[in-house]
Amino acid sequence: MVMGQTGFCNILDVEKRFKIHQKIARSPKVQAYMAPGVSNEKKTEDEQSSRENSIHLCNPHLEKMKEDILYHFALGTGTHDFPSLFGDVKFVCVGGSPSRMKAFIAYIAEELGLGSPGGDYPNICAGTDRYAMYKVGPVLSVSHGMGIPSISIMLHELIKMLYHAKCSNITIIRIGTSGGIGLEPGSVVITRQSVDATFKPQFEQVVLGKTIIRSTDLDEELAKELLQCSKEINQFNTVIGNTMCTLDFYEGQGRLDGAICLYSEEEKLQYLKEAYDSGVRNIEMESSVFAAMCNLSGVRAAVVCVTLLNRLEGDQISSSHDVLVEYQQRPQKLVGYFIKKSLGKV
Amino acid sequence: MVMGQTGFCNILDVEKRFKIHQKIARSPKVQAYMAPGVSNEKKTEDEQSSRENSIHLCNPHLEKMKEDILYHFALGTGTHDFPSLFGDVKFVCVGGSPSRMKAFIAYIAEELGLGSPGGDYPNICAGTDRYAMYKVGPVLSVSHGMGIPSISIMLHELIKMLYHAKCSNITIIRIGTSGGIGLEPGSVVITRQSVDATFKPQFEQVVLGKTIIRSTDLDEELAKELLQCSKEINQFNTVIGNTMCTLDFYEGQGRLDGAICLYSEEEKLQYLKEAYDSGVRNIEMESSVFAAMCNLSGVRAAVVCVTLLNRLEGDQISSSHDVLVEYQQRPQKLVGYFIKKSLGKV
Repeated sequence: MVMGQTGFCNILDVEKRFKIHQKIARSPKVQAYMAPGVSNEKKTEDEQSSRENSIHLCNPHLEKMKEDILYHFALGTGTHDFPSLFGDVKFVCVGGSPSRMKAFIAYIAEELGLGSPGGDYPNICAGTDRYAMYKVGPVLSVSHGMGIPSISIMLHELIKMLYHAKCSNITIIRIGTSGGIGLEPGSVVITRQSVDATFKPQFEQVVLGKTIIRSTDLDEELAKELLQCSKEINQFNTVIGNTMCTLDFYEGQGRLDGAICLYSEEEKLQYLKEAYDSGVRNIEMESSVFAAMCNLSGVRAAVVCVTLLNRLEGDQISSSHDVLVEYQQRPQKLVGYFIKKSLGKV
Repeated sequence: MVMGQTGFCNILDVEKRFKIHQKIARSPKVQAYMAPGVSNEKKTEDEQSSRENSIHLCNPHLEKMKEDILYHFALGTGTHDFPSLFGDVKFVCVGGSPSRMKAFIAYIAEELGLGSPGGDYPNICAGTDRYAMYKVGPVLSVSHGMGIPSISIMLHELIKMLYHAKCSNITIIRIGTSGGIGLEPGSVVITRQSVDATFKPQFEQVVLGKTIIRSTDLDEELAKELLQCSKEINQFNTVIGNTMCTLDFYEGQGRLDGAICLYSEEEKLQYLKEAYDSGVRNIEMESSVFAAMCNLSGVRAAVVCVTLLNRLEGDQISSSHDVLVEYQQRPQKLVGYFIKKSLGKV
């Protein structure tokens, strides 16, 4: 299989855009160029329609490969017929836990009237235990583990998979758990912008030892549509707010209960209050690279996370198992309703 | 349960050490203090013996907690008797894949003559699918997922668990997979130093929005003991070398086959050759925070990874399934032999 030209970024185009955005780099450590997803310049009509329709592969090298092995999915273009397996996918839901993503596919199958009699859905990535993947109709459900590196590996392979499958008009939504700031536990946050630990809407990516900055903007319209869905189902509190994405669950999120903690409770609370004042309503560990990669690939994306606790009141997740299970179903319910509505089934 | 004073870092001690090491911070972005593990000053006898014996908890806040819930293990001091469950643990082996860590516990049980008749080992973390944990005799085997954030969550909870269990003289070894540089695929690398993407032996940790630097030194004696074990079993090539730890598998490691790649093959090869020239022999995604956290907790630690390919020759992991399975058993064999030898069973 030699891949065609359509949907590929051209390296010269990318370099042109880098030059346009040199001024955006802030830190002396950060190399002075930006990735194309950051671009604010007006797009030509061609670019606009190509971004709206198909996956945008920002890698001209892939064109030269005869076969593409998606190692962490245990799938490959030489061994699997991607267009026939995945060509009809329109919605991809991703989340950290494999069992939650399996539960989601059963839930959405039921909601869409596509439930199988036995109710069992095979794991498409059964050849590996790195990720789990399930499909029903136009919906794909994929686990991504915890943290930016883990979701990043998954997204690289997912985006290539959808490209090879010739998918178009894809919407990707991360449904996850998070720590809330100043919200009642169980509230759902739809991310306006994913911000870093200094509250900036950017993702630092290290490439060949140099740090570059990528935009973490998410689709505003999609966020509003999701908020409207939450109003319609009217079962739990949902807000649009900024989401802080950290590289660590304990020290990185100002917890006092890790194996290492070298700051005081006052310093912690001051930090969380600054986060709140900057617009942050929840903290998790995947949204920044998720937004950056979806941006670069021209895929409409959203992040919908439930808050398991209010971090202004504590660090330990101590609600009962049943309460936590019900909380974790909220993003699923919201996104399930959104998919039904998008398919005209509400 | 109110925890005792023994083994806790005192925040004033920590701050004193920070002041001593201000000069080590290099980048203008990096806050000018260092964590205690970086310290080169001579330790008092008390400190020395405490580091050699028990887990060193660098968090004075834990002392005030009545109960400690290890959320991602689905274990807690209020619900589980840690000393009786884990008090006899001496060796902890950690690796990315849950099924590989299950295979390891069966292997080591057999090797130590502790195999159960049915050969099945229950997952101690069965209440969650975030991590898997198995135990036989003095050996604990725990999965950590992929990437620094994922192993970091696991290590915070593991170190607290071993502390609560009153374990002493613990050795932790990461057994994993990696990409090699300039080595025959299947070679095993015992890490001398874990270095970052600019080849520096340091780990940048973001705490309350500020970046601090931690040392990634590993136990030299332990690395030599492991190399000696490899010579004794004499089944595969093993070297001691530096390990580069990255936040990303594709762009972060200079691969040309991700969904995004904005550099040329020449730039990639130049980067990998610079890595080789600086002493790097393999690349993975967990060793830096592993070394940093074990350092801070006074735990003897090593990283033993097999190389699945030679990155100077390609990016895709395309060896057959059987070959890859055999490669992945090599760190297990080496560490299994080391444990047997340590227990006087060789």
